[in-house]
Formats: sequence, structure tokens, C-alpha cells
Amino acid sequence: MKVTPSLRNASVAGPSAALRERVRRPGYLKKLAQPSDLAPLFKANEAMHERIETEVERQIGWSGFTGVGYPKGTPTAIADHIENNNLQANPDTKKKFNLFVGASVGPEVEDRWARLDMIARRYPHQVGRDISKGINAGRINFADKHLSMFPQDLTYGYYSLKKNHGDPTKPLNWAIVEATAINEEGHIVPGASVGATPEILQSAEKIIIEVNTRIPNLEGLHDINHSWTPPYRQPYLISHPSDRIGTTAIAIDPERVVAIIESDKPDNTGENSPENEESRAIAAHLINFLSEEVQAGRLPKSLLPLQSGIGNVANSIIGGLADGPFEKVQVWTEVLQDTFIQFFDSGKLDFATATSIKFSPGGFDHFYKNWANYKDRLLLRSQQVANSPELIRRLGVIAMNTPLEVDIVCALCGIEMLNGLGGSADFLRNAKLSIMHTPSSRPTKDDPTGISCIVPFASHVDQTEHDLDVIVTEQGLADLRGLAPRERAPLIIQKCAHPDYKDILMDYYERSLHECLKRGAGHEPHMLRNALKFHTNFLEKGSMKVKSWD
Amino acid sequence: MKVTPSLRNASVAGPSAALRERVRRPGYLKKLAQPSDLAPLFKANEAMHERIETEVERQIGWSGFTGVGYPKGTPTAIADHIENNNLQANPDTKKKFNLFVGASVGPEVEDRWARLDMIARRYPHQVGRDISKGINAGRINFADKHLSMFPQDLTYGYYSLKKNHGDPTKPLNWAIVEATAINEEGHIVPGASVGATPEILQSAEKIIIEVNTRIPNLEGLHDINHSWTPPYRQPYLISHPSDRIGTTAIAIDPERVVAIIESDKPDNTGENSPENEESRAIAAHLINFLSEEVQAGRLPKSLLPLQSGIGNVANSIIGGLADGPFEKVQVWTEVLQDTFIQFFDSGKLDFATATSIKFSPGGFDHFYKNWANYKDRLLLRSQQVANSPELIRRLGVIAMNTPLEVDIVCALCGIEMLNGLGGSADFLRNAKLSIMHTPSSRPTKDDPTGISCIVPFASHVDQTEHDLDVIVTEQGLADLRGLAPRERAPLIIQKCAHPDYKDILMDYYERSLHECLKRGAGHEPHMLRNALKFHTNFLEKGSMKVKSWD
Repeated sequence: MKVTPSLRNASVAGPSAALRERVRRPGYLKKLAQPSDLAPLFKANEAMHERIETEVERQIGWSGFTGVGYPKGTPTAIADHIENNNLQANPDTKKKFNLFVGASVGPEVEDRWARLDMIARRYPHQVGRDISKGINAGRINFADKHLSMFPQDLTYGYYSLKKNHGDPTKPLNWAIVEATAINEEGHIVPGASVGATPEILQSAEKIIIEVNTRIPNLEGLHDINHSWTPPYRQPYLISHPSDRIGTTAIAIDPERVVAIIESDKPDNTGENSPENEESRAIAAHLINFLSEEVQAGRLPKSLLPLQSGIGNVANSIIGGLADGPFEKVQVWTEVLQDTFIQFFDSGKLDFATATSIKFSPGGFDHFYKNWANYKDRLLLRSQQVANSPELIRRLGVIAMNTPLEVDIVCALCGIEMLNGLGGSADFLRNAKLSIMHTPSSRPTKDDPTGISCIVPFASHVDQTEHDLDVIVTEQGLADLRGLAPRERAPLIIQKCAHPDYKDILMDYYERSLHECLKRGAGHEPHMLRNALKFHTNFLEKGSMKVKSWD
Repeated sequence: MKVTPSLRNASVAGPSAALRERVRRPGYLKKLAQPSDLAPLFKANEAMHERIETEVERQIGWSGFTGVGYPKGTPTAIADHIENNNLQANPDTKKKFNLFVGASVGPEVEDRWARLDMIARRYPHQVGRDISKGINAGRINFADKHLSMFPQDLTYGYYSLKKNHGDPTKPLNWAIVEATAINEEGHIVPGASVGATPEILQSAEKIIIEVNTRIPNLEGLHDINHSWTPPYRQPYLISHPSDRIGTTAIAIDPERVVAIIESDKPDNTGENSPENEESRAIAAHLINFLSEEVQAGRLPKSLLPLQSGIGNVANSIIGGLADGPFEKVQVWTEVLQDTFIQFFDSGKLDFATATSIKFSPGGFDHFYKNWANYKDRLLLRSQQVANSPELIRRLGVIAMNTPLEVDIVCALCGIEMLNGLGGSADFLRNAKLSIMHTPSSRPTKDDPTGISCIVPFASHVDQTEHDLDVIVTEQGLADLRGLAPRERAPLIIQKCAHPDYKDILMDYYERSLHECLKRGAGHEPHMLRNALKFHTNFLEKGSMKVKSWD
């Protein structure tokens, strides 16, 4: 790697004592830089080539997952540089990048890049008002991908089919990653997430490491394995959530490290979504169901490893388990929220593994302060392993996630683009128990139940009927195991729909059944002409309350 | 197991020489019976209980997969018994069973049971005119399930939540399975398929074994591993299609064997679907694409293990590979068709593994006659292993399957119920390359292109956009890797749609894009009010040729 003049001439203060303690490979300290010196290295100009896919040095990967463990300094400096020099106003200087991150990162970087129109592409998941706006306005090309698959597709070269600048064997021009330490070999100890960082580092020509000295050195928290591609891929030899198959740091080629910077910004997380009556009702139905499964002998007394999504229902469930009847519980999940601290502290959670810990600022304070209590009961893995179908299926995970809407034969979906499907499908498809929980309705500005989460026909399908065992709303729980579509539909309506929608949904189903049986196509009855009427009614009149099916 | 009087008194001729050679556990020969003596043992009467789920001895599992390796004698004798005694005419004597088979079986048994209205439930896949009619008429409860998951859900007890008769730990009352030999321990050597037979045997209170002495003894062809449930499940230690992890026979408890019968009927397979110009064009596009991937360094010269579906396109592809540029090819698939014999004989296919071999009668003759040439290059595994996400992902399988229709952002589907999704999702979700191939259109009785296989919005979604890399029709190939929905839609229309539909699809897409960008919801543009108009137009006017979108 030839160090560019702009970097060589950078005026950099000597490394701080904190940084010298964290960076145990002395050669790296010679590469110490300031983010503002690095910003001009990112040259990709929109007008340089006719087709955006072929522009130079457009491909950038960051560390980060669910808004933690992402680089803070360099992305901010690049945005500052662009803003201060007013580069986006002129097509000859405008910069747009293809941005690859395991999942979401802090809004102060991702949303800011979106506002500055610096993002040409973004894979495979995002969270933020401005990035969502950019995608829906057609300025950003986004595609969501199962989080277990994104890193492998990256290493396969599927996101760089048209890359024609730099090393053809490396899908990314740049990796910018956060570390909490660097070991003697120059390998990287991540922060509060692993995500796709190992594959992003493996895929990059040039690496910038942001060593965060504000967060404790988390060495030992991670289990990092090399990501082989076929035909060289081997079994993940894990049969219990606490099994280790890797090392404590991410191996990289030190020659590819362009710069080290010291960072002292915390992960910009918010407060957890507060529980409410609805989320507690859902959690109560669910814990009751799990108890019945234990009684019936279909689950062990300590359950099987749990996966739980993000949000207030997830908080209520995990909070409920902390007070619940199950002991020595194991967790195999994507991300841990604050209530897991409660669950650990209750003594009922034996061991948890995830790819990220997304605590609130107060949660992180507590966690880092009491690190000794948690460090032997927790492991962070890459998202390719945490979300691996191989492991989710082998361990018999109990998966609990939130959809946007559910149709009456159970295709699951979201209207518009929200955040992307994330890891939900990795878990739902492979879990021993696939559970979706949602409020039965959501408010519009005029009507507290203007949107029904149970609809005749989903307007976008991310998960299908073949991947779901149980649906829970605050109204009740529908156990769909072993049922055919004609049995599922009335059960979901009866148990899960909001009372405001029960009759209209049942009327849809009965008319559909009548029509479809008549023409000998009654397996999954629908009136296709009316199938999306909940949605068109909502678009036209602001409510899903369809007056009639005639 | 108490042998019932009706069986003990059965008048049975002594075992034939052929049978004695096949059954190496002498105790089993004392259980020799005639199918007609067994028929009255199947007592489940519809009127015996109020709810069909709770009826006695209703739960039956058969061996069989893609119409091979299924029991022929007992199911036929049960149907004969019912027909001869006119039992179905009277609610007090009418019999209806819940039938569980790994996938489809021969029409002479399954369709006949459906015609006689003997099937209350059927999971997880079926093929046959009469069974399909029964499902669509509402007489049969059918739900399709990923073929890798069906056997595990069976052993989890998910299909027997309401079983209240017999052993509560056994989901099935009866297993009726075909064998080509029985070893000294009483373990079962299957026929031309393994499918879900290990789990069906593991799940059954009582077992009937049909030893087929017409088919050769296939001992050594199978690799059978025990199906553990979590938390006791272990890694499948397979990293090459030829790796063995099991034994040559299915272990069972000999005490549960109720009867042995000798069977001499062949698997009732038909001829293979003939290739045509369209299927050859699809195969040519596909082989060309694979060659380009090898050139780009994204695939090794011998490719990666192939999975190929059933039908004429699959035949053209495998036939094309037999004449093609790739050497030492490996196959990891669900089922082998006749063209695989050609592929073996060409010397280019090194090793193949599947869960079933479904040859035509002539194909089977050739295969059994030349058994010595194939036996070391072929292994049959259970469908839980053959379709395992763990193994498909580890090996980096190249998966090629046929959908009924594809929408322009790539949700894949079938109108009405056809056969069920089978193993397609096991492969598509986990393959290194997920490829779907379909003709661009299909004929109606008046119009050779009355049905477009590329539609604006699928009327039923079995696979989503997140699981597909490539779509091929006879028109061309769309490589969707790394593309966002707004890029995918025009590419699919341009490369894959039939010329009769290109303009109308492009018009739909452009109007949708315009409308959705205007209201800031342009991620996956649709006019929901028109999204299903191809289908409603077809239902009303017999053609998908929509005149306008106004």
C-alpha cells in the first residue's frame, strides 16, 4: 500500500497513553492519523464515469450492527469535508459511495450521509429517517438481504460484479472499522458488535482502524472464525451457545492498514422502547404458551436457546422471563437489549450469545461497570455465525420476531420499505418454534385502530406461511402448527385480529372460500380482485376499515 | 405389540426363496402376512369421534419420495377392502386417515385414496390429479412444508398435537414402508428413495414392512443417520458430496414390527418430460452463464455441487452438462432423473447424492442392469440431510428450480395449489447461486401465450426476492445479484419477459414508479389497485393480456 502524500504530510500529535495501551503492535502507531486528514482520500466523484457502478474507489465497508460498534471519526470527517467544501452542489465534485455495513449504524453518520446525498447504494439493512427517505425517493439503491447471507455474498464478489478499479480480488476499496484493542499480530478486537466486520476486513483493499479508547477493551468477549468460501467451508462445531470455535480478534494483513485513528465517541444509542399494556399482554400469552410446551414435553424445562428481536414486545418478553418460571435459560440471538441485563441479574439466564449488544447509554454504563459479572456468560460472534441456519436449526432455537403485517394464511410483510428484513428470516425458517408477535392494530392520526396488522393479503411478502408456527397479538395466540390454510385463516382471525376487524376479515374469508370452492381452487381461498383492498382503502381514505367486499 | 386376532389367523403361504434371501432376521419371517389380511386393522372411522383430529389410529406414515420407494401392497389392500365393502357410503363405517409421506408417491395409491375420500390430511407434498382435486375441493387438508423441515416437525410432535390414542410419545399410529432388504439386526434397507422414512419409522407405534423382491437389494446405496432433536442434535460432518455419516440401513425396534409382506410391484414412474426448443434455449443460457462465472473466478472449473429440479428444463440442463465444458462435476440434489444416467455415462459427473432416484421404467432397467458402474458414485440420504440448509450452504450448492410465476421484484409463486413448494426453498435460500428457470409464457386453450410467467405481483408467494440470484427464460437471463428492486424490475422485463408482455409490464412498472416516487414510497414501486390485474383478467377473460392500466 502506497501511503498517499496527503496522509504522509498530515500533522498528527503523538499517540495518547490510552491508545498506546490498546495498540500492542507498535508499527501501527506510526500510521496514526487525524480523521480530517483522511477525508480527502475518498475521491469517488459522480461525474468521473458515465455509470456509477464503475467509478473509482466507490466501495466502502464499515463495521457496525444495530447501531453499535461503527466507526464514528472518519465517516464524520468525510461528511464535514464534503459539507465544508460544498462538493455536492457540483456534479464534477459530487461524491457518492456504495456503503456496506452488517446492519444499521448510528444516525449521526448514516442519516447524515443520506442527507448529503453521499450514498449511491446501501446493503443489506438500515435504520434512519433520512436514509429511508433517500431510498423511497429513488436516490439510494437499497436491497435487503438475510443478515446471515450478506457477508458471504460480499466475499463471493456478488456486490462487486462491476468493480473495475483496484485489486480485482477485493470487493471493497475501503474498510473503516472500530476496534477496542489491537493485539501483537495487528489483529482487531472489535467493540460492542461483530456483525460483518470480519468479512468486510477480508474484502477490503485498504483499512482504517478507529481505536475507541472510551469504551473498555473488550478482548475476550468475541469469538471470531475465518469465513471460508466453498469448496473449503467446514462445519461450525458448535452444539451449545457457549462453544467457542475461533479467536478473540479478527485476523488481517497489517500491510493493508492505511491509518489508525483514536476515537472517543460512545455508541450513539437511544433509550429502549418502553413497555406498555399491549406488549405485556403479548408477553403473557407467549410465556404461557412456552409453559404449556414444557408441560406437554415438547420443550425441556430450561427451554431451548431463545432468539428475541428488538422493540418493546421483545423487552416485555425478556422482562417477563426474568420473573418467569424457567431456569438456566440459554440465549442464541442477534442482538441483546437492556432487559437482558435484568435477565442476567435475575440468575435465570445462564449464557447468551449474539452478534451485538445494543444497550441504552445507562445500560452500557451498568454493563461496563459490572463487566466481571457478565464476561463469562456472554460471547459475540459474526452475523454469519449468529444467524447461521446451520446453528439455529441444530440448536432448536425459539425465535420471536415482529412483523409489520400478517395475512390470514401467514405471509408476513411490510408496506413501503422500513428497515429491511434483517435476520428475521434466518431465524424464522430454521427455528424449532417460529413465533411472530405484533399488536393487532396500529393507530393512524384519526383512528386508534386505523391499521390492522392482520390483513387478507400482505402487500409485500418477506416471510411465507411455510416458516411460521405461532402468531401472537395482545388479543391472543394462534398455534398454527400442523394446520392447513383453511384452518389457519379462521383461527388467526378469531384469536389475533382486533375486534374492530374480526367481522370484516371473516366476511372476506367466507366469501373467498365460497367463490374458490365453487371453481375448484379452494386450497388458499382469496378474492384476488379484493385481496389488497385493506391497503388501497388505506391509501385512498386513510383507514383499513373496508365498508364492504361487494 | 399385541398381534391382533385377525392377523394371527391369517392364512399365509410360507416365505418365498427370494424373500428369505432378503430378510436376514429370521424372527421377522414369522410375521409374514398378506396385505388383504392387514387391511381390516386400519379402523379409523370418521363417525367414531366428533373431531377428526382425535380419532383413533388415524395417523399413518408411508415411505416414498417423488413417486419411488413407496409401499404398494398394503395401501392398495386397504383401498380394496374399503371399496369392496362399500365402507365410504356410510358415515358409521367411512374411513379417513391423516397421511404423512416425505413427498409424493405413485398415483395408483395416493390418487386412489383421494378418489375414495380416504384422506383427511396430507403433508407435506403431493402429486396427482385426484389428490389435488380433493384439496382444492376442500375435502383434504393439505399444508406444504419445506422438505427438510417436515421430518423434524414430525419428530417434534407438531403434526400430532391432538393425537390422543396409543403411545403419546409416538406421533404416528402406523408406518408402512418399502424395503429391499432387512439385515440381521432387523434394520431396514430402503428402495429407490430415503425421504422421511427414518423419521416416519422412528415416529410410529406399529410398523409394516413391504419387502420388494422385484427391485434389486440396494444395500450400500444409502447413508442413514439418526435424527436427533435439540438439544442433542450434532453437526453433519459432511464437507464433500461423497462423505458418509451413517449406516446402510434404518435402525428400528424389531418389537414394533407388526407384519412383513412380500411385494413385487415396481415403482410406477412415467416417462421423463421431453425436452423442447424452449427448454434447450433455457439450458443454453444457463450453461453460458456458468461458464462466465468460471471465467470470472467466482466458480471453480468443476463448478460447485449442483442441484436440479424435475421437468424438461432440468433434463435439458443436465443433458447439456453431459455435453458441456465442465469436468469432475459433483451433484448434491433432491432427486435424480434419467438424464443423470447420461451425465454419469459421459464421464463428466464424478459423484452424485440425492434422497431419491426417479428414473423412467427404461431408466431403472438400465440403472439396475449396470449397477456396478454407478454404485460407487452415488449415495441416497434422508431428505432432512439432502435438503439441509447446513449442508447446502456449506457446500455452496448451485440450485436450479422451476417456479410457476415470478413477479418483477422476484417473489415466486404458484396460483392455486399445485404440488407444494417441495424442497425448492431449502435450496434457494441456502445455495451459493440461486437460479430459477421458467418459460416466459404458457399457453391457454385459445392463446399460445395467454399466461405470462413474469407478472407484476405474484398471486401467491412461496419464495421471496431475498432468495434469488438469477432468473432464466428462453428469452434470456437476468443476473440480479447486487441489484436493488428498481434495477431488478426493468432488467427482468427486458431479459426474461415474453415479447407479447414486455410493453404492458414496462408500462405497469413506469406508472408504478411515477406514482410511488411522488408519495415517497418508491422502494418497490407498485400500483396496488392494479397489482393483481394480470390474474383477475385471466380469471375473467381467460388471458393475462391486460389492455390498459387506467
